[in-house]
Amino acid sequence: MDTKTSYWKGIDKIQYVGHQDKKSGLGFQYYNPEEVIGGKKMKDWLRFAVAYWHTFDQRLVDPFGDGTAQRPYDKYTDPMDLALAKVDAAFEFYDKLGVDYLCFHDRDLAPEGDTLRETNKNLDKVVDKIVEYQKTSGMKVLWNTSNMFTNPRFVEGAATSPYADIFAYCAAQLKHSLEIGKRVGSENYVFWGGREGYESLWNTNMKEEQEHAAKFFHMAKDYANEIGFDAQMLLEPKPKEPTTHQYDFDAATTIAFMKEYGLDKDFKLNLEGNHANLAGHTYQHEIRTAREAGLLGSLDANQGDKLIGWDIDEYPSNLYETTAAMYEVVENGSIGPRGGLNFDAKPRRSSFAPEDLFYGHIVGMDSFAAGLRVAVAMKEDGFLDNLKKDRYSSYESGIGADIESGKADFKSLEKYAIDKPQSELIAATHSDHLEEVKDTINHYIIDTLSK
Amino acid sequence: MDTKTSYWKGIDKIQYVGHQDKKSGLGFQYYNPEEVIGGKKMKDWLRFAVAYWHTFDQRLVDPFGDGTAQRPYDKYTDPMDLALAKVDAAFEFYDKLGVDYLCFHDRDLAPEGDTLRETNKNLDKVVDKIVEYQKTSGMKVLWNTSNMFTNPRFVEGAATSPYADIFAYCAAQLKHSLEIGKRVGSENYVFWGGREGYESLWNTNMKEEQEHAAKFFHMAKDYANEIGFDAQMLLEPKPKEPTTHQYDFDAATTIAFMKEYGLDKDFKLNLEGNHANLAGHTYQHEIRTAREAGLLGSLDANQGDKLIGWDIDEYPSNLYETTAAMYEVVENGSIGPRGGLNFDAKPRRSSFAPEDLFYGHIVGMDSFAAGLRVAVAMKEDGFLDNLKKDRYSSYESGIGADIESGKADFKSLEKYAIDKPQSELIAATHSDHLEEVKDTINHYIIDTLSK
Amino acid sequence: MDTKTSYWKGIDKIQYVGHQDKKSGLGFQYYNPEEVIGGKKMKDWLRFAVAYWHTFDQRLVDPFGDGTAQRPYDKYTDPMDLALAKVDAAFEFYDKLGVDYLCFHDRDLAPEGDTLRETNKNLDKVVDKIVEYQKTSGMKVLWNTSNMFTNPRFVEGAATSPYADIFAYCAAQLKHSLEIGKRVGSENYVFWGGREGYESLWNTNMKEEQEHAAKFFHMAKDYANEIGFDAQMLLEPKPKEPTTHQYDFDAATTIAFMKEYGLDKDFKLNLEGNHANLAGHTYQHEIRTAREAGLLGSLDANQGDKLIGWDIDEYPSNLYETTAAMYEVVENGSIGPRGGLNFDAKPRRSSFAPEDLFYGHIVGMDSFAAGLRVAVAMKEDGFLDNLKKDRYSSYESGIGADIESGKADFKSLEKYAIDKPQSELIAATHSDHLEEVKDTINHYIIDTLSK
Amino acid sequence: MDTKTSYWKGIDKIQYVGHQDKKSGLGFQYYNPEEVIGGKKMKDWLRFAVAYWHTFDQRLVDPFGDGTAQRPYDKYTDPMDLALAKVDAAFEFYDKLGVDYLCFHDRDLAPEGDTLRETNKNLDKVVDKIVEYQKTSGMKVLWNTSNMFTNPRFVEGAATSPYADIFAYCAAQLKHSLEIGKRVGSENYVFWGGREGYESLWNTNMKEEQEHAAKFFHMAKDYANEIGFDAQMLLEPKPKEPTTHQYDFDAATTIAFMKEYGLDKDFKLNLEGNHANLAGHTYQHEIRTAREAGLLGSLDANQGDKLIGWDIDEYPSNLYETTAAMYEVVENGSIGPRGGLNFDAKPRRSSFAPEDLFYGHIVGMDSFAAGLRVAVAMKEDGFLDNLKKDRYSSYESGIGADIESGKADFKSLEKYAIDKPQSELIAATHSDHLEEVKDTINHYIIDTLSK
Repeated sequence: MDTKTSYWKGIDKIQYVGHQDKKSGLGFQYYNPEEVIGGKKMKDWLRFAVAYWHTFDQRLVDPFGDGTAQRPYDKYTDPMDLALAKVDAAFEFYDKLGVDYLCFHDRDLAPEGDTLRETNKNLDKVVDKIVEYQKTSGMKVLWNTSNMFTNPRFVEGAATSPYADIFAYCAAQLKHSLEIGKRVGSENYVFWGGREGYESLWNTNMKEEQEHAAKFFHMAKDYANEIGFDAQMLLEPKPKEPTTHQYDFDAATTIAFMKEYGLDKDFKLNLEGNHANLAGHTYQHEIRTAREAGLLGSLDANQGDKLIGWDIDEYPSNLYETTAAMYEVVENGSIGPRGGLNFDAKPRRSSFAPEDLFYGHIVGMDSFAAGLRVAVAMKEDGFLDNLKKDRYSSYESGIGADIESGKADFKSLEKYAIDKPQSELIAATHSDHLEEVKDTINHYIIDTLSK
Repeated sequence: MDTKTSYWKGIDKIQYVGHQDKKSGLGFQYYNPEEVIGGKKMKDWLRFAVAYWHTFDQRLVDPFGDGTAQRPYDKYTDPMDLALAKVDAAFEFYDKLGVDYLCFHDRDLAPEGDTLRETNKNLDKVVDKIVEYQKTSGMKVLWNTSNMFTNPRFVEGAATSPYADIFAYCAAQLKHSLEIGKRVGSENYVFWGGREGYESLWNTNMKEEQEHAAKFFHMAKDYANEIGFDAQMLLEPKPKEPTTHQYDFDAATTIAFMKEYGLDKDFKLNLEGNHANLAGHTYQHEIRTAREAGLLGSLDANQGDKLIGWDIDEYPSNLYETTAAMYEVVENGSIGPRGGLNFDAKPRRSSFAPEDLFYGHIVGMDSFAAGLRVAVAMKEDGFLDNLKKDRYSSYESGIGADIESGKADFKSLEKYAIDKPQSELIAATHSDHLEEVKDTINHYIIDTLSK
Repeated sequence: MDTKTSYWKGIDKIQYVGHQDKKSGLGFQYYNPEEVIGGKKMKDWLRFAVAYWHTFDQRLVDPFGDGTAQRPYDKYTDPMDLALAKVDAAFEFYDKLGVDYLCFHDRDLAPEGDTLRETNKNLDKVVDKIVEYQKTSGMKVLWNTSNMFTNPRFVEGAATSPYADIFAYCAAQLKHSLEIGKRVGSENYVFWGGREGYESLWNTNMKEEQEHAAKFFHMAKDYANEIGFDAQMLLEPKPKEPTTHQYDFDAATTIAFMKEYGLDKDFKLNLEGNHANLAGHTYQHEIRTAREAGLLGSLDANQGDKLIGWDIDEYPSNLYETTAAMYEVVENGSIGPRGGLNFDAKPRRSSFAPEDLFYGHIVGMDSFAAGLRVAVAMKEDGFLDNLKKDRYSSYESGIGADIESGKADFKSLEKYAIDKPQSELIAATHSDHLEEVKDTINHYIIDTLSK
Repeated sequence: MDTKTSYWKGIDKIQYVGHQDKKSGLGFQYYNPEEVIGGKKMKDWLRFAVAYWHTFDQRLVDPFGDGTAQRPYDKYTDPMDLALAKVDAAFEFYDKLGVDYLCFHDRDLAPEGDTLRETNKNLDKVVDKIVEYQKTSGMKVLWNTSNMFTNPRFVEGAATSPYADIFAYCAAQLKHSLEIGKRVGSENYVFWGGREGYESLWNTNMKEEQEHAAKFFHMAKDYANEIGFDAQMLLEPKPKEPTTHQYDFDAATTIAFMKEYGLDKDFKLNLEGNHANLAGHTYQHEIRTAREAGLLGSLDANQGDKLIGWDIDEYPSNLYETTAAMYEVVENGSIGPRGGLNFDAKPRRSSFAPEDLFYGHIVGMDSFAAGLRVAVAMKEDGFLDNLKKDRYSSYESGIGADIESGKADFKSLEKYAIDKPQSELIAATHSDHLEEVKDTINHYIIDTLSK
């Protein structure tokens, strides 16, 4: 492997160059992996991962267009040759970009055969090569997952398919995916139920399908335990697309499902910005929901276009959104014990050159690193902590403390409130000066990032 | 009260006239209260209620316009005179329309005073009159509720306000609202948290606020128990408006909240069509979610305009949506033990004449009655039951039965599936013929409603 | 050709069976082609066309899944064999469905070669076969068009590409498409600019790109004139997808573009329901906009899901929407001199059986035929005509007539209005009873369609 | 007037303090009015205006809540006393904030009487006072306008009302509004047609209503000419709210309307960010559309929340959006000959303190000033100019130049393209490196604003 030709020619290892007056060439302005900030190395806060599917497999198709991607391994025509060449290209990419983690679906790595047995054989060959690379490079797998949505057999669902043979097939497919997870040492295992939802309620037994999904997740956990694969299991919410309605609609819905079926002890959430927006939420809202429930697992780093109604998976570049996401992470102490930031993002179809994969990851990594810097600066100043402490202070003493402690009831509270005039009630409320808060956040962004 | 002048002049009691060749005058084409259908009287399936706020208080304002409503009690200028006159108008309206239930907020009935004590006094006077009317008319209260969102004191929330004095005030206000519920014999008690959400996450302790809400609901239930008010408690989801994000986002989120805080034994859901749409769901989806969780309480009958991003509360007229809603109800056996259909709907601002209140309720009642007729016809034919039984039949025997019974695990399923060729897997799936299903539903609508 | 095997086995010619008590088998309930209604045969009002791409080429892929379609010509592997077999299948389909028109893109019919010359050669061979079939079957082409969006060369636009070579290629491609239009006798020629828009404004000269598009349309018209191809030219609006913003956003925007660049004499509009919804409009709104501008050309018959943010191209089944569309057509006297209803619609991915293509077209044709029947009934009764005549009657005499005739100006109108009290102004407005209007439309739908 | 008490106590004149390490107190970090940048003083690029309605009249109501605003003139109960006191408060506010322009509706300034004559009398009294203040303060009116949507008489439209008496009243009302515009020296006159749209197409003659609107605009221009009021006339697009569909949907639609009715010589556009978003556009898109049509008049400075479906009119704080808007302005040379930035923005309902009006305007002014600085920096470096010049360069010579000059036609272009292989066509396209462009814009924002 050491004599291989370079796939990403003309691109050197990306370095931290810091914020400079004139931007030029490839380099990180904000991501300095070994720099300690907020008590931890940046690379330990961020734990960036590269997604195999978007980075190495994605041809940049859309529903109206064939792929535009130009990739250095396009010359390979035999599917297995191509699959193996991509591994070389991938590990060179990780090294040049300077990330420590990768993520993949089973079907990203190798082509399917006619039976699962043949498919597994193809897959194992590629995984062998990955495992070899891991030994020399130290690359880790943030998570692996299984593609149970692309093949026509999953047309009406995978674990929630109305057809028992499909459920059985999924179980068999997942079994091997867990085995591979163990081999590559995945820290997490993700389930995104691309077809786990409905097209129409007229022909759907929603509860029965959800029960099948729960059964499937329990079987998966049982089998992982059996083989000693101790990855953190994660569910990934998305509200719609490809189905009309997906069962794991958003964080709150997925948490409810996990609790209903006794999965909340073993499963956590993997959250994505673009999915949040499709559900009518901000990314920050989804992260907050998960972390306050103690169920934040890992993050998919991307951004949506809120005027667009489908999943576009842009590389993150909006500093407001990365600041908000990293604020939640800083409040949480970490993304989660095993969480990381996986770039579930792809170039625009018009950014089809090989180097655009570097540009995209750099803007994404730098935007999250910048968000981390801003969040830490706000934290260290106590800016938002003080603001919230102040806002809720009336619950710390007097009637507020009685409410908190459970001493108050409707009768005691009526006594307290019944003769208070309107003026006194209004005086108990305070302007939250939201416009000033936004101005201050702008100040933190500029001030922190120009240093 | 028997000598009072009529408020709704020129309008006689609305009669069932059946479907006729030429529509003329006011009358129900589909709602025949005493007709037995699907094993129950129509009025017992539907339990229609008139909403006090939209029907008698709503001035037809919008954010850019003053009220246009022309109401027969507009001549009253003293707030208490007006409040009492509206009771007369309301009970005449119920009688002429032929409904058995009303719904109201505390603040709909009477004006506020400077203190809650004064406010309660005003309210009690109006409730006295309502109780009198109930004796002679047999009118029942489907549910009452409390307005904790209009007054400026609720600007940053009610039970989730950051200010303890406001929580205390809400408790006191609700206490009296429960007492009134008991007096009028409300079958349910509804909580719609108009301000229970956030404007910005930067200054919000979401979990703390949700804990306050949970505490509040427990106190409410405790006090209801204490006074022997045994109404079914209901939470009503809405995703946004007036706040940026409301905690009771949708059915799934609200169910999760109820379970998290041990409220699911005592509380159920009140669901609204327009709120469903604002959350990105169909009304049918929300009803299905609640009923499969065993938490369907009652329904707000209205419809949204899916191209419009705010709550417009139209009277229901879309027969597809009423058919879908009533299909879920028929499947459920009833809306819920105490559920009904409350018209949380108002005329368009351009339908400002008094008689438009009758037109609106008639199209709404008839559309739901029509939906009921279609749903029952489909049920009696077994149309959708057969279709679904067929679709999921592979779980009844063989490998499917093993999955259902818990006999299967990943290893046994791998054995089953690992050598199946793709062709066999594809053959295990079946077209769901969705276009034919839609054609058949059109047929049921026309066929049933023309009889 | 007469000895060919049937592709659509087990399906006989679809017949008009009328509305029946129990729906069974394939058949039209409302579409009776030779029946005269509103002064014209149904088939002349509706002029249904089958879209080649969705019906014969579409594999039922989505961004997360491979094709599920099962088609009777799947056995052909050589691209030209397949292309020729599809022609046989298509003409058998038209005949069995009972339509008189087809529509196609150049690239639907035959595979591309490495150069346009080779591509044209492939195409001509298939067109030869179509022309042969036209002679014996009487099938006509409602419109043809050119696919200038799928191939990677169109990644940043076709006629609006920043690259002159791509513009040149498009011109050459379109030249041949017009020549083919002439050969098959297309009544219209449609331009849908799949890539004519932008991904980002930062790198886009919007006006320059629009000027290139205009130049392209003028060249196209000039060349059509030169070869004596007198089809009506049509532009088809869509607001977004695949691009972030498409220049032909909606009817109003496209009309503005046509007028700006002197294209409104030679071009009209082809309008689609799902595209209307993506732009925030109803289909009715778009048709109204075009017809009041005298620019309604033809219609794409499909429907969107208003809770879904992308183009799903469902077969139309919503009778409210088909009634609204056909109301506009009836008001217009026809869809347009050469307009028809092309089913730009495809089965759901889960309706993958061959017969679903029949189910889909039947529900679509019947829904539009039903809409036509309802619209004609409302027209013949004068229902909406009277309502509108009444509503605007104040412009027929007095001050209203002065305004219309141009006799009034601000000074004369001030004199008229300055001393009118508020009560008089309010009395000049009238409730529009919108709820009653909706109830009446429901009545027309049920009443007309049950006959 | 010189002895008046201060309304905005504790607030001194807001100063430019520059970007500082620790933000503290009220002050501009980026808005330095006299600083010359890009060849002009900042105040001449920006021409900020304060909106009377949102700043002095808005009570911070929403559809579910009464006003929360606390204003220093709340003690006045007589409507005329209040109206006059607000003028004092307003001019003190302008002075302390440091703006040169105000904007107002006729109905913002003074209460209505029973007849227009009485209403005008009230209004004139307040305008007298404004004119006095203008003499001493040098304050100018960026634009005035007329409120023809709040009063119930406008329920079904103003100039597009179906009732001629309402049209007449509007004409009379506007006549006086133009006269006032002349008295106060308004540089522009704005028409936002709050009710000029439809609730339902079933009862609407859309074209007739649009013709009435056009007639009205012509009468307005004629009367302005007659009295020598030479303000630039502006139409302001909005797609919906309060009506279901507003005729001036977006920039493109409004331009089309202006051209159709010969208004494009005398009218231009006033564009708003939140309205753009409601129409599915970015603010930048709307500004680009107007400026490339030569019809950019003036700007309303605010921002929407893209996950919210109604008009929230936030103060602008998003530096991406202000940079994009100011980039278009810099490209245009100015907002427009008489254009300015009017803050059509209000505090959140929870920012109800008097000082929040300062916070809001400061974040808004600073965000636009920051956007201007970034746009000028990008312009001076030629960053986007070079990028675009390069992208479109193929039209400068060879076949591209032939296309531009009109020398090419379909035949010559076919000759050029017909034998080009696919590889050559693909090579003619180039990646647009959009991710790198976004990274560079982030760099410009941080780099410029930290200086």
